[in-house]
Amino acid sequence: MVKIEIITIGDEILIGQIVDTNSAWMATELNKFGFEIAQISSVHDSAEHIIESLDLALKRADIVLFTGGIGPTKDDITKQTLCKYFNSKLVFNEEVFKNIENLLRNRQRAINELTNSQAYVPDNCTVIQNMVGTAPITWFEKDGKVIVSMPGVPNEMKNAMRTEIIPRLHKKFKTPSIIHKTVIVQGYPESALALKIADWENALPSDIHLAYLPNYGIVKLRLSGSSDNELSLEFLINQQIAGLTEILGSAIVAFEDIALEVLIGNILELKSKTLATAESCTGGNIAHKITSVAGSSAYFKGSLVAYSNEIKEKVLHVPTEILEKHGAVSQEVVEIMAKEVRKLMNVDFSIATSGIAGPSGGTTEKPVGTIWIAVSSEEKTLSQMFKYGTNRIQNIERSTQTAFLMLKDLIYTI
Amino acid sequence: MVKIEIITIGDEILIGQIVDTNSAWMATELNKFGFEIAQISSVHDSAEHIIESLDLALKRADIVLFTGGIGPTKDDITKQTLCKYFNSKLVFNEEVFKNIENLLRNRQRAINELTNSQAYVPDNCTVIQNMVGTAPITWFEKDGKVIVSMPGVPNEMKNAMRTEIIPRLHKKFKTPSIIHKTVIVQGYPESALALKIADWENALPSDIHLAYLPNYGIVKLRLSGSSDNELSLEFLINQQIAGLTEILGSAIVAFEDIALEVLIGNILELKSKTLATAESCTGGNIAHKITSVAGSSAYFKGSLVAYSNEIKEKVLHVPTEILEKHGAVSQEVVEIMAKEVRKLMNVDFSIATSGIAGPSGGTTEKPVGTIWIAVSSEEKTLSQMFKYGTNRIQNIERSTQTAFLMLKDLIYTI
Repeated sequence: MVKIEIITIGDEILIGQIVDTNSAWMATELNKFGFEIAQISSVHDSAEHIIESLDLALKRADIVLFTGGIGPTKDDITKQTLCKYFNSKLVFNEEVFKNIENLLRNRQRAINELTNSQAYVPDNCTVIQNMVGTAPITWFEKDGKVIVSMPGVPNEMKNAMRTEIIPRLHKKFKTPSIIHKTVIVQGYPESALALKIADWENALPSDIHLAYLPNYGIVKLRLSGSSDNELSLEFLINQQIAGLTEILGSAIVAFEDIALEVLIGNILELKSKTLATAESCTGGNIAHKITSVAGSSAYFKGSLVAYSNEIKEKVLHVPTEILEKHGAVSQEVVEIMAKEVRKLMNVDFSIATSGIAGPSGGTTEKPVGTIWIAVSSEEKTLSQMFKYGTNRIQNIERSTQTAFLMLKDLIYTI
Repeated sequence: MVKIEIITIGDEILIGQIVDTNSAWMATELNKFGFEIAQISSVHDSAEHIIESLDLALKRADIVLFTGGIGPTKDDITKQTLCKYFNSKLVFNEEVFKNIENLLRNRQRAINELTNSQAYVPDNCTVIQNMVGTAPITWFEKDGKVIVSMPGVPNEMKNAMRTEIIPRLHKKFKTPSIIHKTVIVQGYPESALALKIADWENALPSDIHLAYLPNYGIVKLRLSGSSDNELSLEFLINQQIAGLTEILGSAIVAFEDIALEVLIGNILELKSKTLATAESCTGGNIAHKITSVAGSSAYFKGSLVAYSNEIKEKVLHVPTEILEKHGAVSQEVVEIMAKEVRKLMNVDFSIATSGIAGPSGGTTEKPVGTIWIAVSSEEKTLSQMFKYGTNRIQNIERSTQTAFLMLKDLIYTI
């Protein structure tokens, strides 16, 4: 396989100021075109460090992609460093200058000394115009290998990758097709799932790779393979997934890598059904996750975050005596919450949560992490108790994911 | 300075399925204790690759921190690889076994073959218990250097780093004291703020470093210094902050690195006041942020996520004719929402939002990114319109942060 290394340059990543989201995006896109990412490295704005990492990367990979360190300010030295490395000199490039002028004119800014300096590029590289920023992209070749330096600003990098760099690399290296397929499984912790499917896993063809990605109550199984024959590879992977389906049956949540809030949204939209939530311990996180999905207003009407008992009584009509007898964290209360919010918001389905998210507030009978979740439709209301840990954020996330799974099961059983 | 390299292990990062957020968190925390991150690398679950990266890292750094690749399944090989590298063998560790048993018992799960295998650890390392997961942390020493392997699951990594690894490294390497102090400023874009405080910044003592960290409507100014004399350094930094306060006055939101939802919570708790929210475009994110803070039930009563107009009318009593005349995204509607939820939930303060989060749904008059925010108390209701961009997630985050700032200002003016 054609191997690529990504090197991100910039102190801001190494002091933790910025999370490197570029590399994951680049890896995903490059994978689709049959490239394998051999390594991702983040290094300082230091000439010595940049050259050392380039030398090492060239030993392991066919292509090295640099992002960052090509702005006009003093701390950015990637261009100068590569210029020296490739024994070239910086020359004024008329085309780059015009591109910069155009860009700045559109932003109603004038060119200055610093922006002008960006029109100087090494004289022995291919220059690729940056259509959305002032720093040009430079493409070097050496002993059949390719070294590209591009901006670290995410939208500038993405634009250059999509329109120029990936198409050029794909053409030059004639890469094979890569297929990843993900199956999401519920109801099994990672290790129990591994035991359950051990025979199937052991019988996988050697060129198909399996990865386990556990995530709050679900496990994503990812099958990957690479081939020059995309169709036969896809057939082979689908065959394996068919075998997996026989073993796991309804424990399979989805046959694609999809967030549960998107899955729920798709199901509701497909069935033209509506949803509302009544949230205590999840504090609005379920509504937040659902409304993070564009277009969710088509099926989501709203949520009542009833954080205090007063609101549970007043808005959701949970009777005082039931709250007093069973406590807010109880099957009785969570089921009433689910039913009442369904009526209040006039929807087909509802979710309700009530629990002790922690880290404090637990009792011997109901320790921190005790969570009741209910899902409700006109036909049926289901509820279940869970015992999670003491981490507040995790308890909120786990409850949210679990609520989505329970809702899906309810929709499918009625 | 004592140098650290972070190596993350796992195919899921190199195929772009997971964004590596661990490294930025680790870098930030290690920085606070006087360590410098020399490089961050992501490598495959491959013995050869892991060993090569370890060898290279040991040449450059004093400490190598591995995350990931220590789950119980076949694809995880870090433990076996390090075991070989350090010429050790895997032995059963009673203490680890008991820890795993305990963890699983709390989760109402039984130990199985795979989880049992996690109790086997190299015989020449220091074993550190993982208090929140089943994979133990292993700590090796070689020629005065330290190599640690820990889980890649973020909360397991963070718990181990905070409680064990950072304290042990700090003690062993006797790193100097680093002091970071953060001042949060509102009302200035980054470049305008830089101009406003240019004279002050230029006069900063050379051993105090200033960083600008812009974040959705606020800029965090971080002053850092390192010294063996912690008290005199702290005095020096406080002196600079006093100068900054003279220049910026009430634009300063906080003198510590604090999330705005925590700040709001502190203020409400101090004043014994209560809060509720009525959210349209933020879809529950404000409630979610507030309830992510432990103890928020003391001041937060609830939220009405009124995602559809029907709920705005029915539960928040926004008159139909006002919705029809001005539209849901209007000053009139957002102010009624704020006032009504304050009454409905019987609280002192309220926040309401209504806007077009995007990416679609805009009109010429009200393009995507048009957001109305209101804050309300019995004495006063304030509202303001904002024009953000087209990114849905960003619009939700910006609106949430801005609402917190508006609420703070309201609380302080009455």
